Amino acid sequence: MSNTPSKERVFNFNAGPAVLPLEAVEEIREGFMNFGGMSVLEISHRGKEFKAVLDETTALVRELMGVPEGYHVLFMQGGASQQFAMVPMNLMDKGADYVSTGTWAKKAISEAKFFGSPATVYSSQETKFNRCPRPDEVKATPGASYLHVTSNNTIEGTQYRAFPDAGSVPLVADMSSDILSCPVDVSRFGMIYAGAQKNVGPAGVTIVVIRDDLAKKSCREIPAIFRYSTHAENASLYNTPPVFPIYATMMTLRWLKKQGGVKAMAKRNGEKAKLIYDALDASSFYKSPVERESRSLMNIVFTLPSDELTEKFVAGAKERGMVGLKGHRSVGGIRSSVYNAFPIEGARALVDYMKEFERTAP
Amino acid sequence: MSNTPSKERVFNFNAGPAVLPLEAVEEIREGFMNFGGMSVLEISHRGKEFKAVLDETTALVRELMGVPEGYHVLFMQGGASQQFAMVPMNLMDKGADYVSTGTWAKKAISEAKFFGSPATVYSSQETKFNRCPRPDEVKATPGASYLHVTSNNTIEGTQYRAFPDAGSVPLVADMSSDILSCPVDVSRFGMIYAGAQKNVGPAGVTIVVIRDDLAKKSCREIPAIFRYSTHAENASLYNTPPVFPIYATMMTLRWLKKQGGVKAMAKRNGEKAKLIYDALDASSFYKSPVERESRSLMNIVFTLPSDELTEKFVAGAKERGMVGLKGHRSVGGIRSSVYNAFPIEGARALVDYMKEFERTAP
Repeated sequence: MSNTPSKERVFNFNAGPAVLPLEAVEEIREGFMNFGGMSVLEISHRGKEFKAVLDETTALVRELMGVPEGYHVLFMQGGASQQFAMVPMNLMDKGADYVSTGTWAKKAISEAKFFGSPATVYSSQETKFNRCPRPDEVKATPGASYLHVTSNNTIEGTQYRAFPDAGSVPLVADMSSDILSCPVDVSRFGMIYAGAQKNVGPAGVTIVVIRDDLAKKSCREIPAIFRYSTHAENASLYNTPPVFPIYATMMTLRWLKKQGGVKAMAKRNGEKAKLIYDALDASSFYKSPVERESRSLMNIVFTLPSDELTEKFVAGAKERGMVGLKGHRSVGGIRSSVYNAFPIEGARALVDYMKEFERTAP
Repeated sequence: MSNTPSKERVFNFNAGPAVLPLEAVEEIREGFMNFGGMSVLEISHRGKEFKAVLDETTALVRELMGVPEGYHVLFMQGGASQQFAMVPMNLMDKGADYVSTGTWAKKAISEAKFFGSPATVYSSQETKFNRCPRPDEVKATPGASYLHVTSNNTIEGTQYRAFPDAGSVPLVADMSSDILSCPVDVSRFGMIYAGAQKNVGPAGVTIVVIRDDLAKKSCREIPAIFRYSTHAENASLYNTPPVFPIYATMMTLRWLKKQGGVKAMAKRNGEKAKLIYDALDASSFYKSPVERESRSLMNIVFTLPSDELTEKFVAGAKERGMVGLKGHRSVGGIRSSVYNAFPIEGARALVDYMKEFERTAP
């Protein structure tokens, strides 16, 4: 297999919005105009064409994630950032527990403060967010409204191997950057949310999987648009949903199913990540700032000996058709995001380039 | 000119999501894959490709609406429904004035109640929302945080001819269904918002034009994601914006500019509406429930003598390639939505069909 992008496509290492399956993107393009004499951008959200899209997308999320009975699958707007506010707005009575594993976890905590007193029950900030806790390192506060975790930390490049056991406290997870990348036991969670733009679709739609008792919970008087109950009762059609982003998500999930679902994804993601982490481990030129047991399979971050070399690395990669490798502006270094749709050839190309760059570096 | 849809396109009378310019839709489809080796769905919102899109879309809104200095143009998510809550959340100190002209105005009032005491300073509910007030019929309450109007009432088929003079009270308008359909003096408004999915793009993006003093106002402690100041300070890039819906909006606005901007749209929309209203006025079979001075140029509603005839009318229209004519489920009857992109040939086809149907009706 060739290590060059197909059909003039680059290897897109962007952290999100990110690479989507070429097959899905091409099918979206091909079917663009074929919606009963109009394009997919023009169909009514109350018509039978979109009903079919919404039903199939919901069914695919249920099937692929293994969502049990008693949970709603909702499509919302505003990304994880809006969920950071909506979760405490809807679910936090007085206190809730948060695990602080990075930039996004901290944002979630910051928004929760407007609705009560979130407790940070674990933080890896002292070690620069280089790890996620083991299950035995997190204890939920008795009576807490929920325990919030960030399953994968996009900026810091860490990921949980196993989630804490919160007992009777509902576990709420921001899975924006690793949803549907590996099997997850949904029944262990009260709620899972994710912006689609990393593993499952384009920007503009948020997937919310929420247990019925939490969807019904109302801690305080809040506007209808911000209540989970509103969206659950109206099956994501309370107001006009983001029609096209949902449609594109459906096409991506169809591809995911065809590949063999989350088990196949986990295998594929494991292989891609192993290639890159093996290259890091074999080198003393590149360094991983992340604890081995917390290494993310989605966002693989590493550093070079200097900022100057980092810049050269990024520029050289671009010349070779590899884009989006610059680390987040808050941490620097290199970040290679290798979500579900990222091809293994791209990981091989990166590793080849890493070796070449190390060999020829000044 | 032929009265049949071009390129197998139907005449799409949907109220939103609605018809977009064929030229824009085709250009979106053609350019779908051409974003530096990836599709438009995969570009980073922090990259130069999207920066160009966001800059151009902002500039087009500014130019086409004639937005003066001192106003922000923002792209948000959640549609007008989310603005119903965000407006009072951000801007209502104790009280604010609302004009109640239909279903959406009432929803806006309902959401405002969570943040204080909105006053309904005018309502046409007693006459089944068959009109919008003349300027002299609305007096703003001294000291009110703002006066809220719904410029066009999609369900009831009414539209303001002139807006109230609120004096020093900022005028806030939901223009979801008639934004950019005719010239508006933006300097008279403190804020204008609109879901894109009727006149300017697909579902999934909300345009907010807000005066700087209002964008900075903070009545209460609210989460960052819900503050206008957050989105203004970050120029719509606080969190991942809906990349594709913004891109599609840009393509629609390019078309609008090419047509001659809002003046040309006003002329075109006036011509389409005149065709249909003239047909209504010439008939005693079809009836308009709307006061003549408040007739909407965007959503033209009318009734037939019976529900049975209405159903037959809708079915027959569909056979002739005209879809989306069923009135909103809350009011029944017929609704023909003829937004900017709706072609005049479609209005002619409707009028021809109306005459034929009346002639042959049992």
